[in-house]
Order: sequence, then C-alpha cells, then structure tokens
Amino acid sequence: MTTDTLSTTFAALADPTRRAILARLFVGECSVTELAAPFDMSMPAVSKHLRVLERAGLVGRSRDAQWRPCRLQAAPLKDVADWTERYRELWEGRLDRLDDYLKQLSSTNKEKPHARKPRRK
Amino acid sequence: MTTDTLSTTFAALADPTRRAILARLFVGECSVTELAAPFDMSMPAVSKHLRVLERAGLVGRSRDAQWRPCRLQAAPLKDVADWTERYRELWEGRLDRLDDYLKQLSSTNKEKPHARKPRRK
Repeated sequence: MTTDTLSTTFAALADPTRRAILARLFVGECSVTELAAPFDMSMPAVSKHLRVLERAGLVGRSRDAQWRPCRLQAAPLKDVADWTERYRELWEGRLDRLDDYLKQLSSTNKEKPHARKPRRK
Repeated sequence: MTTDTLSTTFAALADPTRRAILARLFVGECSVTELAAPFDMSMPAVSKHLRVLERAGLVGRSRDAQWRPCRLQAAPLKDVADWTERYRELWEGRLDRLDDYLKQLSSTNKEKPHARKPRRK
C-alpha cells in the first residue's frame, strides 16, 4: 500500500534481527553464511531478512567477488537521520523546560513553579 | 511477533499519513477533528492511524480538556535519532572518501587513483 522510500526504510528497520544484521555489516562486509552464523536462524530466514534490507537499499551485494559479500549502504540511513533531525528541538526543548522547572522548584518557589520561561536558544 | 519498543516506533513511522500527522502535531496540539481535516480520509481511518501512533508513544492524548487534544511526544523520536546516530560516520565518511577520490583524480594521477587516504577526523 505505502511504497514511498522512507516508509520502505522504516518498515525494514522495524525488526530487531534486521537491525542486528545492519550492526554486523557496519563492522565490515561479509558473506551471507558469516552473517547468519550469530543468529539462531535458518539460512532461508536470514535470506528473507536480507531481501527486505536489499529492497530498502540498506544492504547491497557486491558483484566483484564470487561469494558476493553483503555491505551496508548509507543513503537510506541518512534519510532517516534527516527526517528525525527536524524534530530534535522537540526533545532538546523539553529537556530545557524540565531543567528550568527543576531550577524553579529548588529556588524555594518564589514564583509559580508552572510558569514557563522562554526556551533557551 | 516483534514487540520491542524501537521496532514498534519504526513500524509506526512506516506510513506517510502517520508521518504527516506527526508533522501537523509538531506545530502544536489539536483535536482529532482538526487533525483529520487536511486528509482525504474518514474519521475511523484517521483514528486507526492515531491508535498506532499512541501505541508507539509518539502521540499522547491530554486528559485536561474535554476535547482531549493530541500532542506529539518526543521520547520515541529521540530513540530513533540515537539509533541512527551511530551510523553517521558511514555517510559522512563516504563523502570524505569521495571528496578525497575527486581530489586525486584532478591531481593528474600522480598516484594510483583508487588508493584510499586515511579518513579525515
């Protein structure tokens, strides 16, 4: 139903095994057999996860070597980082406000503790 | 099948309508009716998307007001940012290496163009 690139990436990342595969490939490229070794999974199960990651462009298969090593591809992860970045002020702003609130609490309640100060820049 | 928090978050984000709802709520909290207005969707369809976002902790419903406004919650987005952050050097490193490669190409091939320089810090 939803086939936009970012949705495909998020869907591919919504699985702990697939994220573990990416973490392994971050160390360096390796064969499917090497990739499957630490997981208590059948090769077809690992291959299925790999296909999801390949479709999302998160993993590529080299054509250079006969064993066709898998390698991590950065572009979709950068897209996720760029998307998430626009919300950064949300949690950084909140931490600032919490910080302000705690300061107010500790200053013996001279003012209303719920009064919000302007957000720090 | 997969119920870890990060997987639930990624699954919730794997839909353009749900991401558009988050973008709207980033501007400020609003009622479900206001939220549904810009989308060509039935209220039940919007409510279904909202439930997915609420389950993932991305949206909260205030109990203060009778109209129970929806608001964006930062914590799961911060978790996504933190997870993505560890891969940052992947795309930044690659850009550095491409940059190095282009510089080598333009320097009339005194050395082998494919030799990799150490990554800039």
